[in-house]
Formats: sequence, structure tokens, C-alpha cells
Amino acid sequence: MVNLKDDERLDFLLAEELRIIQSPSVFAFSLDAVLLARFVYVPIQKGNIIDLCSGNGVIPLFLSARTKVTIIGVEIQERLYDMAFRSIEYNGLQGRLQMIHGDIKEMPNQLGFGKFDVVTCNPPYFTTPSKGEINPNEHLAIARHEILCTLEDAVKASSQLVRQGGKVAFVHRPGRLMDIITLMRQYRLEPKRIQFVYPKLGKEANTVLVEAIKDGSPDLKILPPLIVYNDADEYTPEIRGILYGE
Amino acid sequence: MVNLKDDERLDFLLAEELRIIQSPSVFAFSLDAVLLARFVYVPIQKGNIIDLCSGNGVIPLFLSARTKVTIIGVEIQERLYDMAFRSIEYNGLQGRLQMIHGDIKEMPNQLGFGKFDVVTCNPPYFTTPSKGEINPNEHLAIARHEILCTLEDAVKASSQLVRQGGKVAFVHRPGRLMDIITLMRQYRLEPKRIQFVYPKLGKEANTVLVEAIKDGSPDLKILPPLIVYNDADEYTPEIRGILYGE
Repeated sequence: MVNLKDDERLDFLLAEELRIIQSPSVFAFSLDAVLLARFVYVPIQKGNIIDLCSGNGVIPLFLSARTKVTIIGVEIQERLYDMAFRSIEYNGLQGRLQMIHGDIKEMPNQLGFGKFDVVTCNPPYFTTPSKGEINPNEHLAIARHEILCTLEDAVKASSQLVRQGGKVAFVHRPGRLMDIITLMRQYRLEPKRIQFVYPKLGKEANTVLVEAIKDGSPDLKILPPLIVYNDADEYTPEIRGILYGE
Repeated sequence: MVNLKDDERLDFLLAEELRIIQSPSVFAFSLDAVLLARFVYVPIQKGNIIDLCSGNGVIPLFLSARTKVTIIGVEIQERLYDMAFRSIEYNGLQGRLQMIHGDIKEMPNQLGFGKFDVVTCNPPYFTTPSKGEINPNEHLAIARHEILCTLEDAVKASSQLVRQGGKVAFVHRPGRLMDIITLMRQYRLEPKRIQFVYPKLGKEANTVLVEAIKDGSPDLKILPPLIVYNDADEYTPEIRGILYGE
């Protein structure tokens, strides 16, 4: 049984393998988070992973299907942390998945420097707008805008948390790619694999996935293009495979 | 009539619109150069363009079909400069296209700082290897390796030659993307449009096209993916259109 609050619903992940609590008025995960959880390198048997700006825990939940290692999710909004916590309990994953309610900027001091094999992050995408433009829904505003966490905060915390030779993976909009990779290099994270996501063939990319290695040597690969929809506006087989495990 | 030397041949460009002198033992242009000549923004009626590391002049020749403005090509190898010069004469383009035999590093002093609307460059792709590995054919070695011109030389000269607000377009391998964009930002060239070229759907990109604006504001677009071959190993319609003007 699960205790659903307000307008929450219990959605399926990966066909019917996992379930996740979502809410249209508080937080619902995006395709981007799923793509990041599939894109990032993960150790299978040994090691540990930390997911920053974890929201309702979608990335830890997805990753749990790819690896047996322990995964920590960090979320600053108590309401979202609570959703993630209950989803983990519902799926019986509390032995391997842990949520922390806190600020990612404090995690290196709290958890230790260089202690993680992999860091993932789907940060807020938008720089903080003027007051009039901001989403009046505080939950959505904090998840989408750099109000409590800037891109630099996220890259810096990632670099501090990951071990030398460990991996840091981000998803973001292509418009911020220059900022991400400039910040990554500034914090000793060398981009090694980038994949662009195009909504359709013939369209500009609307998402970028970047994986860097702490103190890695420069040698960047651009992975095959990921196309989301075919000409009939249906998910391509590749995206169906990622979303539903088909 | 054209005076062909040694193993030179007179190849067609853009179906039968233009012809270009090539030589397997000295220099033959690549698809990358053609893609750059199609990718870059060009003024149509007024302005000027300079192409660095021009080889046999393929980029100025291709660009001449897209614009009426004057185009200067700079090539350090006299043998290649001479091929480009004769191709321009053969096509009757000497009124609009000019070749300079010289070192790109000296062009800002020779031609002036900030005097060009557009700079294009298809630089040598490979860092200089040890002596044993280098191509014994000096023409090919200089065209392919950073012997007389490093990537930083090319980016720096481009930045010096282009006017504020003008455009600089490079083609290179994705493995050097981090270096290109880091160098561009270092020399006040802000990347604005990037396009990745994938040999096939499902394959990693093997070429990247980057266009930057001198002192531009950060706002990067990733253009639709360019796929070179279909599953039957034939050029895709898009590539045929670019190569043959179909």
C-alpha cells in the first residue's frame, strides 16, 4: 500500500517493473531525467552513486534497474523528498536507495570529498527570471529555475563529491552547453561523452547529455543522435526501449 | 583551357557548375570542406570573406556559388596555392576570388584587424606526431598535421581578422571540440551554431561544424543532425543536395 497525498498519482516506470509517485501540481519527471539515467555509465556490482537535484527520485529509481550498488538522492524540497522517500519504500528499494533532504552545496562536507564513483544531476534549467515572470507555484519554480541551486553550484558539488577518475553526468538544454562544459573544465571535470537529443530528424537538438571524468584526459566522443519522435509523432523504437524497457 | 601539372585532374563541383584542380598526391578536398562552405552564414550582396588554410581553394570556389561578395583564400603551400589560383582562373572568378600565398598568422598585419565579415577555416586536423609517424608526403603532412599552423594559430588569426559581430566558422573532428570552443571563447569568439555530422544513423559523429560570433552573447543552437549515408551506403538526399546542388 502507498499513502498518496493531494493530487498525487502512482505512475509506472519501465513498463510495470517500478512505480513512482508524481503530482502535476508539485513535480512530475521529464523524459530528460530518464535519458540521463540510461545515458550515464554505472558500476554494476560495486561502488556508489549520488544523484543531485533528485526531485521525486526518478533517476535513482531508474538507475536501480541497471545496477546493484547503493544510490543516494539529494533533494532540497521537503515535499519532493517525501514523494521520493515513499516511492522507494513502495518499491521495496530502501536497502539500496536512500534519499537525503538537504542542500547539494552542503553534501561534500556532510558525505565526504571524492567518495562517489558516479554523480548524476538534472539541474534546474532556467536562470532566475525577474519576479513577475517566475512560476507562482513554488515547487515548480524551484525545480525549474536556478533559485536555490545554480549550474555552477551543481557542477562544483559534483566535482567535490566524485572520486578522481569517477564520472559526472548532466542533462541540460543545448543553449547552456557552453556554460556546462566551461564550468566542468573549471572544476576539473573533462567532458568525454556527449549525446544530443533531437525531437525529430531535421529539428534542432533540445536536450544534451554530458558525461565527464574527474581529471580525465581530453578526448571527446559525440554519441549517435537520439531521435525522440518519428514522422508520425510516435516515439521511435529507441525511446520506447528506454522508457518501457521494450 | 587549363594547364594541368603532374597527376592533377579537373574535377566537377556542384554538378557541372564549377571545376576544381585536384591531385591525389598533393591535395584533394574532403566532404568536410564542402559541408563548411554550405554551413557558414554568408552575406549575399555586400561584404567580404576570408578562408584560412584554403588548400586547393575548394571553400572559396563553393562559396562563390552562394554569394556575390569578394572572397580571399590564404594558403601557405605554394603548390596548393597555385592549384587554387589556376582553378579560379579556369572558372573565370578572378574578379571576386583572390588567393594569397602566405602564412595565416601574418594576415592580420598584412590585411588589417577586424576587416572581414566572415572567416572560414578547415584547419589541419591532427596534432603533430612524432617524426616516424608523420606522412612522408610533405604536402599531405602539412595539410593534415599542425606543423605550420596549430588550432590556436587558426582561431587567433580568425578572431583578429573578423570584425566585431562578424562570423567565424570552423570544421573539425569532434575529439577536438572542447579545444575549439575553449580557444574560441579565449579569443572572444562565442559559439552560436554547432552541427554534428554522423556517417550514419546510429553512429558516433565524425565531424563537427562550429560558427561563432565575435563578442557575441552566449546562446548556442545545435542544428539538426546531418547524416551522410543511408542504410544502403548511399549518400542521403541532404548530402546529395549539398554536393551536387540537386
